Amino acid sequence: MLKEGERFDELNIKNMVIIQHKDKFKFGMDAVLLANFVTAKRGDKIVDLGCGNGIIPILIAAKTKDTIIYGVEIQKEMVDMAERSVRVNHLEDRIKIVEGDVRGIEKILGHEKFDIVTSNPPYMPPYAGFEKKLVAENIARYELYGGIEDFVKTAYKLLKFGGKFFLVHRPDRLADIIYFLRKYSLEPKKLRFVQPYVDSKPNLLLLEAKKGAQPSLTVLPPLFVYEKTGEYTEEVKAIYSKESLEEE
Amino acid sequence: MLKEGERFDELNIKNMVIIQHKDKFKFGMDAVLLANFVTAKRGDKIVDLGCGNGIIPILIAAKTKDTIIYGVEIQKEMVDMAERSVRVNHLEDRIKIVEGDVRGIEKILGHEKFDIVTSNPPYMPPYAGFEKKLVAENIARYELYGGIEDFVKTAYKLLKFGGKFFLVHRPDRLADIIYFLRKYSLEPKKLRFVQPYVDSKPNLLLLEAKKGAQPSLTVLPPLFVYEKTGEYTEEVKAIYSKESLEEE
Repeated sequence: MLKEGERFDELNIKNMVIIQHKDKFKFGMDAVLLANFVTAKRGDKIVDLGCGNGIIPILIAAKTKDTIIYGVEIQKEMVDMAERSVRVNHLEDRIKIVEGDVRGIEKILGHEKFDIVTSNPPYMPPYAGFEKKLVAENIARYELYGGIEDFVKTAYKLLKFGGKFFLVHRPDRLADIIYFLRKYSLEPKKLRFVQPYVDSKPNLLLLEAKKGAQPSLTVLPPLFVYEKTGEYTEEVKAIYSKESLEEE
Repeated sequence: MLKEGERFDELNIKNMVIIQHKDKFKFGMDAVLLANFVTAKRGDKIVDLGCGNGIIPILIAAKTKDTIIYGVEIQKEMVDMAERSVRVNHLEDRIKIVEGDVRGIEKILGHEKFDIVTSNPPYMPPYAGFEKKLVAENIARYELYGGIEDFVKTAYKLLKFGGKFFLVHRPDRLADIIYFLRKYSLEPKKLRFVQPYVDSKPNLLLLEAKKGAQPSLTVLPPLFVYEKTGEYTEEVKAIYSKESLEEE
């Protein structure tokens, strides 16, 4: 199952593992927080846009019942790793990895067929003079194959009316995110900032938007990652060990 | 100076006072927090949209040097109270209260003449079947004479290129606020949520937008109002006693 430089990392849930390469993009806390921010119903149809090594589809599959999850990924080698992780966890019936560009993927997956779209997209615009090096690290971090507007537009096309889009991103992009969500009728409904410490600036945000909903946003209390001692807070520990997602 | 039912309330800064009526809309912590969130340069020209009894112009005048502040207010009786508060504090040379509707006030105050616009606008949309009772309480609380888009549009018209709009509002309106700011080229640059306690949802937000700026929003650490004991936090105590605003 493993190729050179790869290893199995344990996910601490239902004996699931994920294949990661020592030199390539590895999942971070943002993916774990996003997967846990999702609320799903039994049997929901879900798409994860830019699924990388498949961490979010696998976590959601582990924490929900009878859901079907499509992971869209543009990088062939990440698709290959994700497919092997799906197999090793025996999730072939519930997770399909689709190689392709997020932009236009509704032509393959279908219009308005999904209950939930999730995404942990690249956070940064390509800087001036950025060389389009086709390495996983860059594609996962920089908006080389679609920016916020592209991801939002695709989520809009994939979602049924009333369907939900769950996103993790950086706080400095909040204005872009909200502007494009509103532009594509995905009304922001829940927003939670993640702060390292009680007195620090947030470094991540979790956002839930609902297609066709009325305006009114609930800003939740911030999620604090560390105690003053540097230890994880109780809430973060609970998230890492949570066995199932909130039902809607 | 005082009419029936009115009193002088002390502002704890440079012996300033404000006239308030026992049964009418009185300023709250939101006005104080907004006035302290403003950063101003000596001599800035400022407009406060929907100034009510004049609290924000008076606090800003007290905390800055040589600024000129126009307060726009639609209610004749609040204009009258605000003007008397300006006189009793000897601020006639620096604060002008203008009776009028925020919508279109640039025709009187001039286009693109101001460095700063501030506003503590009504927070709530008029509910279905709302009777347009012309009482101060309703006008200060409900969007009867202009909603978020109107206030933002007016701020845009009044501000010079590079000028700043400082706003206090409710978190549930954040998507509307950001959408309209972006629509009118007022780029959100700083956002701070105000939470009663460390573990509560925010109940206010403070936002700074800059006309014509590039995107990139700094979300500041939240402002906590109370300690667990119910006492004000040190930061809130410091805000209430702060003698001057940050310089730009």
